[in-house]
Amino acid sequence: MSFQSLSGFRDFYPEECALREHIFSVWCESSRQFGFSQYDGPPLEPLELYKKKSGDEIVGQLYNFVDKGEREVALRPELTPTFARMAGAKHRDYKKPLKWFAIPQLFRYERAQRGRLREHFQWNCDIVGEASLAAEAEILALIDHAMRGLGLTREDYVIRVSDRQFWLDFLQQNKVTDEAKVYDFLQALDKIERASEAETREKLGPLADQVFSLLEKGTTSERLDTLMASCKALGLADAVKIDLRIVRGLAYYTGIVFEVHDRSGKFRAIAGGGRYDNLLKLISGEDLPAIGFGMGDVVIGEILKDKGLAPKTANIESYYLVIADEALRPQALALASALREGGYHVDYPLTAAKVGKQFQAAEERGHKFALVVGQEYASDGVCGLKTLATREQVNVRPEVRDGKVSSLAPVGC
Amino acid sequence: MSFQSLSGFRDFYPEECALREHIFSVWCESSRQFGFSQYDGPPLEPLELYKKKSGDEIVGQLYNFVDKGEREVALRPELTPTFARMAGAKHRDYKKPLKWFAIPQLFRYERAQRGRLREHFQWNCDIVGEASLAAEAEILALIDHAMRGLGLTREDYVIRVSDRQFWLDFLQQNKVTDEAKVYDFLQALDKIERASEAETREKLGPLADQVFSLLEKGTTSERLDTLMASCKALGLADAVKIDLRIVRGLAYYTGIVFEVHDRSGKFRAIAGGGRYDNLLKLISGEDLPAIGFGMGDVVIGEILKDKGLAPKTANIESYYLVIADEALRPQALALASALREGGYHVDYPLTAAKVGKQFQAAEERGHKFALVVGQEYASDGVCGLKTLATREQVNVRPEVRDGKVSSLAPVGC
Repeated sequence: MSFQSLSGFRDFYPEECALREHIFSVWCESSRQFGFSQYDGPPLEPLELYKKKSGDEIVGQLYNFVDKGEREVALRPELTPTFARMAGAKHRDYKKPLKWFAIPQLFRYERAQRGRLREHFQWNCDIVGEASLAAEAEILALIDHAMRGLGLTREDYVIRVSDRQFWLDFLQQNKVTDEAKVYDFLQALDKIERASEAETREKLGPLADQVFSLLEKGTTSERLDTLMASCKALGLADAVKIDLRIVRGLAYYTGIVFEVHDRSGKFRAIAGGGRYDNLLKLISGEDLPAIGFGMGDVVIGEILKDKGLAPKTANIESYYLVIADEALRPQALALASALREGGYHVDYPLTAAKVGKQFQAAEERGHKFALVVGQEYASDGVCGLKTLATREQVNVRPEVRDGKVSSLAPVGC
Repeated sequence: MSFQSLSGFRDFYPEECALREHIFSVWCESSRQFGFSQYDGPPLEPLELYKKKSGDEIVGQLYNFVDKGEREVALRPELTPTFARMAGAKHRDYKKPLKWFAIPQLFRYERAQRGRLREHFQWNCDIVGEASLAAEAEILALIDHAMRGLGLTREDYVIRVSDRQFWLDFLQQNKVTDEAKVYDFLQALDKIERASEAETREKLGPLADQVFSLLEKGTTSERLDTLMASCKALGLADAVKIDLRIVRGLAYYTGIVFEVHDRSGKFRAIAGGGRYDNLLKLISGEDLPAIGFGMGDVVIGEILKDKGLAPKTANIESYYLVIADEALRPQALALASALREGGYHVDYPLTAAKVGKQFQAAEERGHKFALVVGQEYASDGVCGLKTLATREQVNVRPEVRDGKVSSLAPVGC
């Protein structure tokens, strides 16, 4: 008998987990380098939190249920509502602007299709309390930094920046104020790259000519021009491109929006975000400007694998003790312990095995060194140290002080 | 209007998240030092997986529900069933013994009481495919290493080691074979420290005299003696103590069991685990011996706070740029970018502020250095570098190469 996991949920065996943790560590380190502090919220929240933000229609896509206490709850589909709740509740305890990041696992209930996931991890970074475009520039610089930290270059990706407010102003000038019509217009723009021009023209109706003309002329807005000047100062000129076709599906953005794409067009969007100056007030009652983005682990993981940038194993300088004589096991255990105390990465065979088998185990497990504990260790404190890739072998004398190995000094040097 | 989170779920604001991540990083680093590889599974699993392992009674404590596809599912209350499923399914792809670790968030649905959590994180380490007591010794050494990595000493904690098989043999010798009676006996032992001797004697019935006598004499088993010899070789003699009163509540342990406690007795158990040689067969059909433990983030977090060992903030050498003249903002942004490229941790004011305010912000945000970008930077490439704690100031010249700051060389040295 054997159990299956639920469809749409991933098992992370060590190889997949190594890639995941590599991505997480670049996200974390980039965030910290940019002065962001880590936070997290509950993976389960009251359903109401998401309805309030996105309307009742959202419920169809949520992993929601009624719990044993008759509460309507949902596994979080995104972190922004939780962030808005938390930041709104305690923002007075922190200096503005807040710069916070998190890497939550998120959930959605969609019809299970082949390869379609119901969970993913997402890097979230947000700045709260800064209304100027300097916040946008800082966010874009952070994304660019992380992308390169993952080993990608600006020839691989582009950050497409747009201005949703530009279109809202455009609609107002054209007397389109009905909420449903505004929504339909933004939807038509959002899908413009996947639809034929005829389809889009039909959706845009009388505004079609103007829209296509604005896009062809490469129109920008004052906001976009100001932002691009900061981007240039931050060295981002060739990473960022103005593209007014980007509007982002979600309804709550209020100004600059952006998406990160691979330039080949082979993959879905890598990341997306923008300014949402009204959401904190809606969720927490606190009127604070905010901007942020999310980057999922799935698309970026596919891209790293595609480009051969996924780490095979954790690249650690680790040692495997080869116990040349089983009678020396107690000494080998003591040495393993002292090495670990000294910060070394150490493994050893848990049961007696032939020396050849032990060297083989050392290689198969991806260790860099084999450290041989034999008679010379018992008599003189000397071990053979073999670099497994090159087969080079030298003798070393572990220097033990206070139960810690402080160095593996080559003998005779 | 404002939203509440669900009762029993924690918000991790930056201070709490810093403690959590500190604990996680010691857990991760200790695991890797001992040759364990990270894995993870889904936070949601079929309810059946837990029923199979623990019987139908477990359901009352689970955060389980029926999902939109009419599946009975549960938020994972522990990782071991998932681990058994995963290890069983693919163990042939890996060399034995498997040494795997994970830090899952776990859930249970208990009556919400003040301070009673419905989620926690738990460090899980397991070894599969090694039947000898060397696996137990390795697991105990890992726990001891991590505890000291967190800043605790062996005067703070003790690992109490017991042998459930000793008691199962004892019961067999005394002709107690009825499953319910075996269970009641183990329960009585498990609660011995919190119950009066009279209560325990009543529960143990005719076996009471023998049990108290065995405990008083400090009886051990052959398994325990062998294990203690390995522990001694690993330098664990004063961290580990034989204590046959430990049996662990869960029904699936088959041999050695252990718990970690603070010696003061002020806190609940810090960690617990043991050998479970039958579970993989039950869950996956693969007959493999296994041993493992779990350590939660809540009790250890309380202990670290109690002993003043919780980190206040991430102790990073970070720089805050002070923009002495707003006209120099573009140069300051370029310098921030080049510093970050060079691996420095850098923040700066997003909007114009008086110099005094900027120094204040640098201190309030916990930066180590303020780096002043003023006229001397524009004319000669020289910045003032102030160590905020000591108020020492020197002049430095950022060495920029290929858009990266390679060093902040003191001027005139």
